[in-house]
Amino acid sequence: MDLERSRLARPFPDLPQIDGVTVRVARAGYKTWDRADLTFIELAEGTAVAGVFTTSACASSEVEMGREQVKQGYARALIVNAGNSNAFTGYRGREAVEQIVAQVSDALGCSGEEVFVSSTGVIGVPLPKDKARAGIAAALDAAPCDWEDAARAIGTTDTFTKGARAAAMLGEARVELVGIIKGSGMIAPDMATMLGYVFTEAAVEAAFLQEMLATANAATFSCITVDGDTSTSDTVLAFATGKAGNAPLASWDDAGADAFYAALLEVCRELAQLVVRDGEGAQKFIEIAVTGADSDASARRVGLAIANSPLVKTAIAGGDANWGRVVMAVGKAGEPADRDRLSIGFGGTWAARDGQPLPDYDEAPVAQHLEGEDIRIDVDLGIGSGRGTVWTCDLTHGYIAINADYRS
Amino acid sequence: MDLERSRLARPFPDLPQIDGVTVRVARAGYKTWDRADLTFIELAEGTAVAGVFTTSACASSEVEMGREQVKQGYARALIVNAGNSNAFTGYRGREAVEQIVAQVSDALGCSGEEVFVSSTGVIGVPLPKDKARAGIAAALDAAPCDWEDAARAIGTTDTFTKGARAAAMLGEARVELVGIIKGSGMIAPDMATMLGYVFTEAAVEAAFLQEMLATANAATFSCITVDGDTSTSDTVLAFATGKAGNAPLASWDDAGADAFYAALLEVCRELAQLVVRDGEGAQKFIEIAVTGADSDASARRVGLAIANSPLVKTAIAGGDANWGRVVMAVGKAGEPADRDRLSIGFGGTWAARDGQPLPDYDEAPVAQHLEGEDIRIDVDLGIGSGRGTVWTCDLTHGYIAINADYRS
Repeated sequence: MDLERSRLARPFPDLPQIDGVTVRVARAGYKTWDRADLTFIELAEGTAVAGVFTTSACASSEVEMGREQVKQGYARALIVNAGNSNAFTGYRGREAVEQIVAQVSDALGCSGEEVFVSSTGVIGVPLPKDKARAGIAAALDAAPCDWEDAARAIGTTDTFTKGARAAAMLGEARVELVGIIKGSGMIAPDMATMLGYVFTEAAVEAAFLQEMLATANAATFSCITVDGDTSTSDTVLAFATGKAGNAPLASWDDAGADAFYAALLEVCRELAQLVVRDGEGAQKFIEIAVTGADSDASARRVGLAIANSPLVKTAIAGGDANWGRVVMAVGKAGEPADRDRLSIGFGGTWAARDGQPLPDYDEAPVAQHLEGEDIRIDVDLGIGSGRGTVWTCDLTHGYIAINADYRS
Repeated sequence: MDLERSRLARPFPDLPQIDGVTVRVARAGYKTWDRADLTFIELAEGTAVAGVFTTSACASSEVEMGREQVKQGYARALIVNAGNSNAFTGYRGREAVEQIVAQVSDALGCSGEEVFVSSTGVIGVPLPKDKARAGIAAALDAAPCDWEDAARAIGTTDTFTKGARAAAMLGEARVELVGIIKGSGMIAPDMATMLGYVFTEAAVEAAFLQEMLATANAATFSCITVDGDTSTSDTVLAFATGKAGNAPLASWDDAGADAFYAALLEVCRELAQLVVRDGEGAQKFIEIAVTGADSDASARRVGLAIANSPLVKTAIAGGDANWGRVVMAVGKAGEPADRDRLSIGFGGTWAARDGQPLPDYDEAPVAQHLEGEDIRIDVDLGIGSGRGTVWTCDLTHGYIAINADYRS
């Protein structure tokens, strides 16, 4: 099926080149589509890498290998195959990844540990080795391309290309961070549930890059959900080429570390929100802010219980300020809550305070808010100081059409 | 909106009268509908009661009171209000329930603790006391009615009336068990997530009835899900009038206890499955059998992760044997699993064994199975001997239409 561009789509930003990063794409032909579907990103020697991966117990070979590879901290290449996730394919899938790693490490004269592979698409079909081999050979011969070409090539059911940027001053050096991401369905937290990549010319030690990425992930990718379904391939990798020449960042105390983290967080948040904006069938972007929880972690779990509730998501789709369904979702979250202290609002207007509907509740501004595309739900649990914000989209006929009406 | 009768509906069974139970219905007018919406069930003196309730942190006053009331073990009346759940209504909701309890205990000359109240419907509107008072007065004057009248009166968005029966021999005495239930949306395990009632003329001590009901609940009501959303009002109560005159059952060692439990389990399972058959928008009834798990509890949680996955549910709606989505759901369940030992089948045909698609997998019988209304998914985790079965329905445009296209 041809999917219409999401009405919540954002234009692809103007992304700068990152010194030490060369982007190429090629056609491996993993599906019968007329587009590039293999992305080859070459990284300068000494590039530090960090990664977070799906917690799925049925993760793909790519994820299993990536979890090990990030431990040594360096990367020379990233290959992304689109159209076939290579998950649940046993030893044959593993062999395909090993072949890719060997071919690329031979070509670049680097260690196999420094070659990262991601695959996304159908589950259960081993990645065809002949197509992968020819695709990589073609990529090695290809001219460099721009970020949007790569963002397009890593996509599958995505309806628009997704990228983000931010910058930070590290002493005298201004460093850029750019990110691209793909993801539309099978999106639920538990790390990331999509493929996302962040690149920077800053010099950052791998262990500290990992710490910052994990921290940013907890507040961004782990706070989004489209359908509560967690993919078997999800991966976010961050690469720092070091070409900016700054004194390498190694801890939170280093000058510029806070500025760099703020930029990383900004890129991650934008990428995460773009995935929600391309949620299958999404008509509305929903931000759910939970305050007054027992802890920040508890606030996030309450937020996700609301964000994953099909009854809440369909209510928003229908423009219905059905705060009773929000109460329900809070109640089922399994987190500390007190019915008689709970307050719920939409778009800045409280509908219920302290466990009861407001007697003078004026539905008019709420109804107007719900007609928009950007919806805000506030939930105050009234029992502590924990807070968290999560993002999701509504549940519409479009989701059913994409996932039930057509065979995958 | 007028909902069409579910295509998965079953005819209401021929249910016998239960000695010691008198059923009446009345019109309280909780909504602007032209039907009975207050059910009044009078129970003989000495009727034992057991109950299981929602674990929601935002449960209604009815649930809070019921949890306390079952501890003393006896019941003289059950009142069910349909059209208003009275949940999230603060002290005003509580007052309405206390008024009902006082009015009924006065009329029957019993203790208030023996009067059980359930309410179902919209959240956040205090149950109108005047309508409740007039409705109960009308019920007290009404002629007794049959079980299907009560099954209809307790319903809200239900599209068909639901009842079940079973019998057991206790020595010379044949005892009947009958049950009625309502529920269609906001259905997820964590006890029961709907209102269900079982009645028997058997003599059973309350503590043992509670033990049997809790055990049966774990294998039936706690194994169903429509949308993963847990209601704030869910309740299952069992009443044993003792009119059969058998020696009261007090432990699993008593003669007839096993037969009685088997009958109770049968009624609970049938009632639970009927709720799934009336799942909002349901076109297919899905049984998911999980074997080879770390434990029975783990098998159930894996089964529910599959049953609650919108991607699995939409795949079944589309007749798509998409076992990759089942792999995904197993992976996200958070339970012990080994990708390379996992096997998945549909309708008795294995599609994947030991972590890989079967090379000689014949999709034809699977495709034929998926065209039917009763779908069976087998998942063998291959790591232990835990097993469990859960039931759900598919996710269709009907669910979206019911919950998003119309204001509640």
